[in-house]
Amino acid sequence: MKKVAVILSGSGVYDGSEIHEAVLALYAIEKAGATWHCFAPNISQLHVINHLTGEEMDETRNVLIESARIARGNIDDVAKLNVDEFDALLLPGGFGAAKNLTDFAVSGAECSINNHVAQACRAFAQAGKPAGYLCIAPTIIPMIYDQGVKGTIGNDEATAAAFGHMGGEHVNCQVDEIYFDEKHNVLSTPAYMLAENISQAASGIEKLVDKLVEIA
Amino acid sequence: MKKVAVILSGSGVYDGSEIHEAVLALYAIEKAGATWHCFAPNISQLHVINHLTGEEMDETRNVLIESARIARGNIDDVAKLNVDEFDALLLPGGFGAAKNLTDFAVSGAECSINNHVAQACRAFAQAGKPAGYLCIAPTIIPMIYDQGVKGTIGNDEATAAAFGHMGGEHVNCQVDEIYFDEKHNVLSTPAYMLAENISQAASGIEKLVDKLVEIA
Repeated sequence: MKKVAVILSGSGVYDGSEIHEAVLALYAIEKAGATWHCFAPNISQLHVINHLTGEEMDETRNVLIESARIARGNIDDVAKLNVDEFDALLLPGGFGAAKNLTDFAVSGAECSINNHVAQACRAFAQAGKPAGYLCIAPTIIPMIYDQGVKGTIGNDEATAAAFGHMGGEHVNCQVDEIYFDEKHNVLSTPAYMLAENISQAASGIEKLVDKLVEIA
Repeated sequence: MKKVAVILSGSGVYDGSEIHEAVLALYAIEKAGATWHCFAPNISQLHVINHLTGEEMDETRNVLIESARIARGNIDDVAKLNVDEFDALLLPGGFGAAKNLTDFAVSGAECSINNHVAQACRAFAQAGKPAGYLCIAPTIIPMIYDQGVKGTIGNDEATAAAFGHMGGEHVNCQVDEIYFDEKHNVLSTPAYMLAENISQAASGIEKLVDKLVEIA
């Protein structure tokens, strides 16, 4: 059975992993006949957002501990991710991917990426193993692959421009489609960058995961 | 389009709504051609559990605010749930259903139920509108319906006995099956009371939601 490593960034769209995307991705992995194990960095979230009001809360939360809510405990520190044990990598979206895994949401093209997350993603790239990035997570792609790597964040012009400034080449993509950079063996799909409901998000995610497991 | 009200109890299996069940339920509602709106009580959680270690954390969190993580903001205080605006009711599981909506996890058959949750559930029962309860949430059924109402929590003997002590009649049920009490128009399925992975949980949840929307 093929094994997919999934890197989460918390639990909740505004300060962590987008919950629908993460669950749909894990479910799609199972439906494709593969298994999953989650990972997340053992660091504090950038901040905690009240998802009812959108306001910042006076709290601190740990990315790994909150991600464990989605993973039902099937999770480890991303520093322990051994590429040899997995066939493919998947990163769901949510602002956590751009606030906790990197600080793209704050710094745009001048952002930094968490060291252990970068090591894990680069290990899959260097091993030639396929990876899939959902929603805003493809902003990580240019930090991992060669100049000119192609990926999608949907059709948001500012994000697409930043994708280019980081060395990637952005491709517009519909919510129910995926983009596959065959040269770099990396997949992306817009999910909730464009989706207006769960079914729309699921359409692209299920297509991406099917392809990811197929080529793994 | 039929509208389903979904009552959540936080965000995370050990102290709130089971995230997979909640997302699978919302997705199933959309696939069945209906729409959803979430509700949750505006109260503090019984406690906060570190989902990585299983230990209690020295924090307080609000059930409505945490539930909003799953609902992406499409949520209101359950005190505002107007039965006239909906065709059916759905309650996902997770320990939150037995820690925050009721205190069944602490008090068993001698438990209490949150007043606004009880009012909402009883309104659907009295209007003859169908309701579905997943996982551990069916422990609420005997508090809402007549003596002898039938439901399932899977096959756990202690929980089944408590279900009987509260006035219900427990029915054993496989994870991919549902139980429909036609007299009371109430559905239940074991989900993660028995499921060992997302696909197993999805099998019963999708079947229940399809039936719920059909009879709504």
